[in-house]
Amino acid sequence: MTVGIVGLGLIGGSLGLALQSTKLVSKVLGYDHNLTNCEDALELKLINEIVSFNEIKKCDIIFLAIPVEAIIQTLGSLEGIDKNTTIVDLGSTKGEIIKSIPSSIRSNFVAAHPMTGTEKFGPHAAFKTLYQDKIVVFCDTKDSSDFHKDRAIQIFSHIGMKIVFMDGEAHDRHASFISHLPHAISYALANSVIGQEDPKRILLLAAGGFESMSRLAKSSPTMWSEIFKQNRKNLLTSLELFEKELSTCKEMIKDEKWSELENWMGDATTLHKIL
Amino acid sequence: MTVGIVGLGLIGGSLGLALQSTKLVSKVLGYDHNLTNCEDALELKLINEIVSFNEIKKCDIIFLAIPVEAIIQTLGSLEGIDKNTTIVDLGSTKGEIIKSIPSSIRSNFVAAHPMTGTEKFGPHAAFKTLYQDKIVVFCDTKDSSDFHKDRAIQIFSHIGMKIVFMDGEAHDRHASFISHLPHAISYALANSVIGQEDPKRILLLAAGGFESMSRLAKSSPTMWSEIFKQNRKNLLTSLELFEKELSTCKEMIKDEKWSELENWMGDATTLHKIL
Repeated sequence: MTVGIVGLGLIGGSLGLALQSTKLVSKVLGYDHNLTNCEDALELKLINEIVSFNEIKKCDIIFLAIPVEAIIQTLGSLEGIDKNTTIVDLGSTKGEIIKSIPSSIRSNFVAAHPMTGTEKFGPHAAFKTLYQDKIVVFCDTKDSSDFHKDRAIQIFSHIGMKIVFMDGEAHDRHASFISHLPHAISYALANSVIGQEDPKRILLLAAGGFESMSRLAKSSPTMWSEIFKQNRKNLLTSLELFEKELSTCKEMIKDEKWSELENWMGDATTLHKIL
Repeated sequence: MTVGIVGLGLIGGSLGLALQSTKLVSKVLGYDHNLTNCEDALELKLINEIVSFNEIKKCDIIFLAIPVEAIIQTLGSLEGIDKNTTIVDLGSTKGEIIKSIPSSIRSNFVAAHPMTGTEKFGPHAAFKTLYQDKIVVFCDTKDSSDFHKDRAIQIFSHIGMKIVFMDGEAHDRHASFISHLPHAISYALANSVIGQEDPKRILLLAAGGFESMSRLAKSSPTMWSEIFKQNRKNLLTSLELFEKELSTCKEMIKDEKWSELENWMGDATTLHKIL
């Protein structure tokens, strides 16, 4: 099976590395509109060859590993593709993307979200085990043909992923809590500190706790503003729920309700029994 | 030099382990009002011996590695201590503790905050390298005698710590941003998810990003509600600044100001040039 990867950053590049080790795949071809990314990906051996977008369209399976707005813009140029070509998008949002798939290629299409990543981006951030033991969510597969769905299942299971089926709407609602809201919070925390008189003096004291809370604020602003745009409604809802929790915390501190505060913190610790 | 450690959890236990390897220290004695902690600490060899609080008072240097409210409650029982005995508290807040030191032992006292820790607690959480290469803040050392200050400097430098001098007020203001606010946020995030209809289904999708943002919400509610109590004013200020940043983010999403949002995220990423 030949694989074509569109977008050779952290997500696409790591996928290329992982797929080259599977027995299912004979060749991994890559395309990126950024020429430096192409050169880097080739040098780092993330893919076997760099080809044109038209060559990518001849592969058995195509992965769209590009930002979510670019995925939507690319869908049109995939119309008319062979009935046996599988298309998988790896976007962090699913609702808007699925809605935008031209009906003529809907059955070719498998909408997937691998729940993995780091705050880094670009070909140099890629590594072979990014997908190992992680969850991948398949959305609205009732509209994918069994042939394409099964092919995607095979590929993801061979790079060590755990598959979860979910409707696109539920995915976006859940992802807003688990991924998009945490990014908004991390950016806001970083900006709160930067806005202070002497951030350097404050950051001198930063240890592991602050580092884990601010790590996501290193993530690509272009990529994440697009994700926020596509998942706007769910994100606003989860933001409001979070604001309410934080305000509850603030009021307890203001009113010096220390045992209530301790109970509220105790509730929070129960998360880790589920996690 | 003999060392006495009051409180044998993560902080005290790790200190005991680290001190046993230094050439400065001949013996590490431990005390904990919790008998199970004493047994565990002895079995894990965090200290050389368990002794009574009165025996601890005969050591050359005493570390108070107990929750911040307990530190204040313990200060009275240290009155009348030998002029050559150094007392170091390791609390996460400094202002209230320093204010509570009886004037008769103020010069014995070195108020220190090692900027390290994990979300775990208790003797079993202790490990030898907790302090290695981390920052320790010494506050208001003008009121410590040079003899005691120098002794504390020696000890901390021998376990690999980097020393920073700061006034207690500045420490508490900075710590509210770098440590106390991140804890409040993490607890609030955990409670936002737990409050949903099906947290298990949401948490199925949790990956590295959510894990780092919710890790601090595992921390001890008793310990952290006390820290919030002692640093109440600073924490309220930093909470309000954070709420403002988050609200800025929310309004941009609501008003679909995507390029402004991207710029705001870009500002946040500059944090990591300082960090």
